Amino acid sequence: MEYKVSNRMSSLKGSAIREMFKKMADPTMISLAGGNPAAELFPNEELSKIAADILKENPVGALQYGISEGSIPLREKILEMMKERENINASLDEITIVSGGQQAIEIVSKILLNEGDSVIVEAPSFVGGLNAFRSYGANLVGVEVESDGINIEKLKEAIKNTKNVKLIYTIPNFQNPSGVTMSVEKRKALYEIAREEGIFIIEDNPYGELTFDGVKLPTIKSMDEEGVVLYSGSFSKILAPGLRLGYLIASKEFTEKVVLGKQVSDVHTSLLPQLLAYEFMTRYDISELIEKMRTLYKKKCDVMIGAMREYLPENITYTVPGGGLFVWCNAPGIDTLKLSNECVEEKVLIVPGNNFATDQSLESNGFRLNFSTMPDDKIVEGVKRLGKVLKKYC
Amino acid sequence: MEYKVSNRMSSLKGSAIREMFKKMADPTMISLAGGNPAAELFPNEELSKIAADILKENPVGALQYGISEGSIPLREKILEMMKERENINASLDEITIVSGGQQAIEIVSKILLNEGDSVIVEAPSFVGGLNAFRSYGANLVGVEVESDGINIEKLKEAIKNTKNVKLIYTIPNFQNPSGVTMSVEKRKALYEIAREEGIFIIEDNPYGELTFDGVKLPTIKSMDEEGVVLYSGSFSKILAPGLRLGYLIASKEFTEKVVLGKQVSDVHTSLLPQLLAYEFMTRYDISELIEKMRTLYKKKCDVMIGAMREYLPENITYTVPGGGLFVWCNAPGIDTLKLSNECVEEKVLIVPGNNFATDQSLESNGFRLNFSTMPDDKIVEGVKRLGKVLKKYC
Repeated sequence: MEYKVSNRMSSLKGSAIREMFKKMADPTMISLAGGNPAAELFPNEELSKIAADILKENPVGALQYGISEGSIPLREKILEMMKERENINASLDEITIVSGGQQAIEIVSKILLNEGDSVIVEAPSFVGGLNAFRSYGANLVGVEVESDGINIEKLKEAIKNTKNVKLIYTIPNFQNPSGVTMSVEKRKALYEIAREEGIFIIEDNPYGELTFDGVKLPTIKSMDEEGVVLYSGSFSKILAPGLRLGYLIASKEFTEKVVLGKQVSDVHTSLLPQLLAYEFMTRYDISELIEKMRTLYKKKCDVMIGAMREYLPENITYTVPGGGLFVWCNAPGIDTLKLSNECVEEKVLIVPGNNFATDQSLESNGFRLNFSTMPDDKIVEGVKRLGKVLKKYC
Repeated sequence: MEYKVSNRMSSLKGSAIREMFKKMADPTMISLAGGNPAAELFPNEELSKIAADILKENPVGALQYGISEGSIPLREKILEMMKERENINASLDEITIVSGGQQAIEIVSKILLNEGDSVIVEAPSFVGGLNAFRSYGANLVGVEVESDGINIEKLKEAIKNTKNVKLIYTIPNFQNPSGVTMSVEKRKALYEIAREEGIFIIEDNPYGELTFDGVKLPTIKSMDEEGVVLYSGSFSKILAPGLRLGYLIASKEFTEKVVLGKQVSDVHTSLLPQLLAYEFMTRYDISELIEKMRTLYKKKCDVMIGAMREYLPENITYTVPGGGLFVWCNAPGIDTLKLSNECVEEKVLIVPGNNFATDQSLESNGFRLNFSTMPDDKIVEGVKRLGKVLKKYC
């Protein structure tokens, strides 16, 4: 049957990164493309025991309909964690459980964006976030990310020159894809600008805990006294992404809208993942698990950077990240979309930079590498294969 | 901070039914309002064992990122079930796993509806469906439900008199809230009209298996050879709603859009619920569980109808349903919103009919009762309390 897709959805394309997943059916392929956490750190024995207990002892709590706001004990537990670990003080009516960080961005977009409204995003930025905004017909305005975060002068200019800016989207810690962390000064400046202009900030913080040296900068939300910041947190990178579990912290008044959006979207987040996360944090110390991740990812990052020094041509520059999952590279004069296709031939997957741009059709010299997923020897072998492809250009 | 909600979301109100949940904190309250399945039939011992096994034996499958389409084994299992039980023949690229039936409707709305487009709905209809359409700024056009389903002549008229009709939304079996099942003739007529007019049908079928006498009419999807029908199925009423697990069957081409919508919405449905449902259907015969539900719900419905005959005034009319979860009542001359508030005073919850209308501000004489949730003695006591309130009007 013939039909027309809605205007808002008509220009949307799927994530090329998720399409790449399918290439992983080839067992000789090495993926430096995804953003999967290291599976060896999943606390599966613990979760297995917890799941069995929950379903036996609290079947109604796990299997009956729940409330759209999310499990009260889980929300209380997260608020405790936010207070201790992020200096965020929020109450129970300021937090909503969502099915992963992606859903937080999608629901905020639905609440705030009319078609044609503008969203200021970091350039480059997370494709899932960009696609959520695109799926509501938003006009995306990219502002360059420097080594200490978004360029504040250009942000001011962008706000001045753009109509109907409703949102500023930032990943302040170990940004995806650039690996950059925003300085405290810029966090303060960004907050003040947004507050003065009456524009919401989405502070997307999936990687903040994955700091290699344990240093954590204050969240923008911790500076917020006027409900300017919509803080999106996630269990994907500190517990397990397959659970699809995240949370959005906002003002009480905005949270009411979020709950409404959540109700219309999928009634509530699946209860078993909610109870699993709650029980895991109650029975165990999640900071121990986070500490293991920091150690493992630091080691894997070192392995990758070491291999890059050995196997990549000298003109390839990159950021050495202080945490997170990614290394962002710059290949001067090289169309990295073409490069990534040649890499597939050599059985290594990388993500070309155009994916992270507001205009994906433009050529990019950047590309993203991931070090959290593959075992060390495959990281080295993958970088070696990438180096082989890159050397053809030199 | 001051802000404006998007046009699409500005008129949306939360489900009054979900708000009523909160009144259940009072232990003396009897709820005939919700749509919760009977918790005593949750196969919690089985699911407890299965969850423990999955997390121990297949942690990566349960905890790592998955594909937006949903688990392949689960989709294959559902397709088998659809073939056997609903005469629906679909392939793997025609089914998407979603986080419950609500999400299927929400994603379809996002794909198809521009603001101001029209959706034809049964009058009365499921508030969650209506709210999903409203949340994309749709114009809702209600067409009366008769004792054998939607009025076909009025449907034709509505299509003729309405611009940009993009969807017809129907619950053909044991409709929520009317309890009515659409006749085979009307299913055929509805399908032909939609096909000729080039309008999609959402066939929402959460209750089809809950037939008291085992008789099942052919699904509209089973007649569909041109991709007219978007079939929404759910595990909420045949396994457990807290899992938030459903599926949408559509043409291959439309399914590509659904997968895109799903990816932007929440990446994919939580994996543990997906694997739980798959393993449950593999290790056990789900038709045995369904058979137990049919028997229990028939008994509970009989208890309710018996109590209604005894305790309700004679001018209150109602449908005796052949399945599902609900009895729909008509109280001539009574504003049932007012009635429902008086019922709260008497510690019984019912859902006033205005909730199920395209215009919720209009007075309704209808109200909905649920018989699946409460134990038998509370059903009787609840109807008795309702009768006491109703008698004040007679």
